[in-house]
Amino acid sequence: MFRPGPKNLITDIAGLTVGHSSDESARSGVTALLCGGAWSAGVDVRGGGPGGRETDVLAPENLVGRAHAVVLAGGSVFGLAAADGVAAALSAKGIGLQLRPGSPPIPIVPAAVLHDLGNGGDKDWGLAPPYRDLGIRALSAAGSDFALGSVGAGRGAMAGLIKGGIGSASLDLGEGLIIGALAALNSIGSALMPDGKTYWAWAFELDQEFGGGGPPRRPMDSSDPAPDESRLMALGRLQAGANTTLGVVACNADLSTVECKRMAMMAQDGIARAVRPAHTPFDGDTIFALASGAATLGGNQQRAAQIGRIGSAAADCLSRAIARAVHFSDPSRHQRPSV
Amino acid sequence: MFRPGPKNLITDIAGLTVGHSSDESARSGVTALLCGGAWSAGVDVRGGGPGGRETDVLAPENLVGRAHAVVLAGGSVFGLAAADGVAAALSAKGIGLQLRPGSPPIPIVPAAVLHDLGNGGDKDWGLAPPYRDLGIRALSAAGSDFALGSVGAGRGAMAGLIKGGIGSASLDLGEGLIIGALAALNSIGSALMPDGKTYWAWAFELDQEFGGGGPPRRPMDSSDPAPDESRLMALGRLQAGANTTLGVVACNADLSTVECKRMAMMAQDGIARAVRPAHTPFDGDTIFALASGAATLGGNQQRAAQIGRIGSAAADCLSRAIARAVHFSDPSRHQRPSV
Repeated sequence: MFRPGPKNLITDIAGLTVGHSSDESARSGVTALLCGGAWSAGVDVRGGGPGGRETDVLAPENLVGRAHAVVLAGGSVFGLAAADGVAAALSAKGIGLQLRPGSPPIPIVPAAVLHDLGNGGDKDWGLAPPYRDLGIRALSAAGSDFALGSVGAGRGAMAGLIKGGIGSASLDLGEGLIIGALAALNSIGSALMPDGKTYWAWAFELDQEFGGGGPPRRPMDSSDPAPDESRLMALGRLQAGANTTLGVVACNADLSTVECKRMAMMAQDGIARAVRPAHTPFDGDTIFALASGAATLGGNQQRAAQIGRIGSAAADCLSRAIARAVHFSDPSRHQRPSV
Repeated sequence: MFRPGPKNLITDIAGLTVGHSSDESARSGVTALLCGGAWSAGVDVRGGGPGGRETDVLAPENLVGRAHAVVLAGGSVFGLAAADGVAAALSAKGIGLQLRPGSPPIPIVPAAVLHDLGNGGDKDWGLAPPYRDLGIRALSAAGSDFALGSVGAGRGAMAGLIKGGIGSASLDLGEGLIIGALAALNSIGSALMPDGKTYWAWAFELDQEFGGGGPPRRPMDSSDPAPDESRLMALGRLQAGANTTLGVVACNADLSTVECKRMAMMAQDGIARAVRPAHTPFDGDTIFALASGAATLGGNQQRAAQIGRIGSAAADCLSRAIARAVHFSDPSRHQRPSV
């Protein structure tokens, strides 16, 4: 009934561009999402081990409530420097809040990071972590086409016991309304059901965008609430901040900051449906929501219904983006015939 | 691998009892959950139209962080009076915080309500809504066995376009650890997939507890993010506070208030997986978490892993409780042969 946008990427939201950079020796990287201006933005943090910056500036009770770019990065706390690089680069281009003539523009660059420090890459960077430069490079690479899989912020990511990475998807709701999502999947939980092959998100798949595997043929035992726990423990993954699903959802509607917050809150359901368990003490699950404002919603009760519809679509897109992150991170899975 | 507790009810947590009361002419009612003492408690409110009381007392930064009972009620804001009745009745029995000798004990009774005012029952109560008395009656009825379906707080509830109600489920995690959930389902979203018969929660079903329908036979079109929207609009359901999934999750571990908060947060994923859409601007989705403290968890990182495991189990139990609410509310569904 509804179909993805032309690219089935978050960049189907006109004005939004995405760029990746990576450091192959560090097995880490950065993904920058550049808004086409100071877009309404909200954030919802639900993981027990989050790492972020400029989230308070998006709180509904605060003043700005807008963002010029959003940065997702590997590198745990060191990755936060990627947003410094992006902020400096944007300001140098004249992008940001201009508080008075002659002072440098102030770009609002919220960011969230995931932990890939234990993935075997060279993290012996001493006083010079690479993330500030990676942020600048990711911003330079921003365009409307971008890669999925083990790239950018997802370069070194793991989804439970298999490779995670970057996924993205979009949905055209008709009447000029487009929703998109981008996930950087580094979760403690698995995107696959206990059979090891069916995506939890299978019900939301469109056009075989993550392999067309469909539902499982028969019931399976899903009674273990944390099936991979002992193996994750052995890997040292059961620590605060050691895992995270980062999400950005976006639409072209004229949402306010509080409406973006509701969109981000509803989009957390997309993590819940695509990853199990989610929102654990060890995850840093954080979702940003962006709204370009190009499409005008109505007012009153009808408007709230549209917010609910947009939030639900954002959850669905994020579930699909999560499954696509796994699908594109594993070439063998990517080639796997439909079952 | 893991199995439900002996009753497959939240009352498998030793010391917890549950009672229902209802007003058949009003088509509404109350469900009271009585803790076996002042149990650690937390709450997580995620709906856009919540109605509650004594939620702030459970905030981790506040002092008490415990509850003697939890009340769920129909009647929208009028239902909050049910907790007044429960608090008075408990105090009269000597249950509550005793601040000084001779002063009445102060029971902490958090509550949340759902909207059933538009369900056709007689709500012409003027200055005398029935909920205070219903609260007292529900408390009197509290026991370790209780009914599921269109009873208590779920007497007049709707789940999307079909009957909602009360559901409950439990999981025995072994080593003496038991988790349970109770749902009062009055959601805007549907507990059934677009085929109208498969439960969204099918993957979590144990022992055919909600009909054994299993997974769907083939993929279906789940692209519409709010499939029942136009019909819900016509019913006047798309209004703040007009819909709600209320949940209580409980365990017998020695969780602190903050750990109960994480358990409640993770349990919201159980709503997300069992109802779509969820957490809309029109839902009042609220989850309480209770911990009896009978079972001692370890410390440090191992403890956090157990919290994650308990939270994931709480989410699964709540998904199952939601499906059971629908299953037991509709006799025809209840009798429906497995497919």
